[in-house]
Amino acid sequence: MNNKVLFKLNYGMYIVSSKAEEKFSGCIVNTVTQITAEEKPKLIVAINKGNYTNSLVKESKKINISILSNKADMLEIGKFGFRSGRDSNKLEDIEYKIGNNGIPIITENVVGYMECDVINIIDSGTHDLFILEMQDGEFLDENLTPMTYEYYHNVIKGKTPPKASTYSKEK
Amino acid sequence: MNNKVLFKLNYGMYIVSSKAEEKFSGCIVNTVTQITAEEKPKLIVAINKGNYTNSLVKESKKINISILSNKADMLEIGKFGFRSGRDSNKLEDIEYKIGNNGIPIITENVVGYMECDVINIIDSGTHDLFILEMQDGEFLDENLTPMTYEYYHNVIKGKTPPKASTYSKEK
Repeated sequence: MNNKVLFKLNYGMYIVSSKAEEKFSGCIVNTVTQITAEEKPKLIVAINKGNYTNSLVKESKKINISILSNKADMLEIGKFGFRSGRDSNKLEDIEYKIGNNGIPIITENVVGYMECDVINIIDSGTHDLFILEMQDGEFLDENLTPMTYEYYHNVIKGKTPPKASTYSKEK
Repeated sequence: MNNKVLFKLNYGMYIVSSKAEEKFSGCIVNTVTQITAEEKPKLIVAINKGNYTNSLVKESKKINISILSNKADMLEIGKFGFRSGRDSNKLEDIEYKIGNNGIPIITENVVGYMECDVINIIDSGTHDLFILEMQDGEFLDENLTPMTYEYYHNVIKGKTPPKASTYSKEK
């Protein structure tokens, strides 16, 4: 079995955010996928159990998803991808707005966003798989190009952190 | 709520195939996502309940995933995306091999493949969400570029069929 073939799957890049009581966090994921297109579309997202955002999503059952554009740089991604919301204020020095569900949505260099409710959680080892129902969503700048995971790796030379769904020690 | 923001999510393009007794089918999906990278990685795939492939995956609990490359054209995609395996032999006039799990793997214009067992099925309305554990996988041609969903739409001018997870009547 050659696990490296998995590096050939295509993804986008997203900042997911959640808030429970006054606690806020957000993190970078590449695992957002639409699974149905009914009146209220359903999506999935996998988030590492060690991420603070995971705990807050479990507590609030709400999550907002920002679609990162190519304009986002390593500085912005680093704010969400390589430090924890447990011991830093991730809303400092970043553009955001508050969603209709009360959860902050990151808006900086973002194409658009979805506000979602969690309708099911599947334990998947290192990660939880959250099944989501979209409640709201809008474009912020339709003309921006959504960032692909490949662009993140090959153009802005981003690394895969150990908590990513795609992390491999061999990499 | 503006559902069109969902068109900005990034995906790859895949042919998934299954076989139960002597019945075979395959179909095109864009919903393959790795959710953990443990020793045997876990993935998800959403398949419309009306697809014959869906029935065969439920029956056999096995599925193979071929990662389509940019070399694939509408003729190849049309064979799997716009007709049913119920009334046509989808293995006719296409390159394939038999996987270690006994399920045919489409190999024509394909970067590599994963052989997977189904470990859970989540009913998600029009689609079933299959949780998969990868059992085997290999490159076929590592130098090919994996096709993105965006390339399918914008370069080879592919349409979204009504059974796709991303289908919208407004589109």
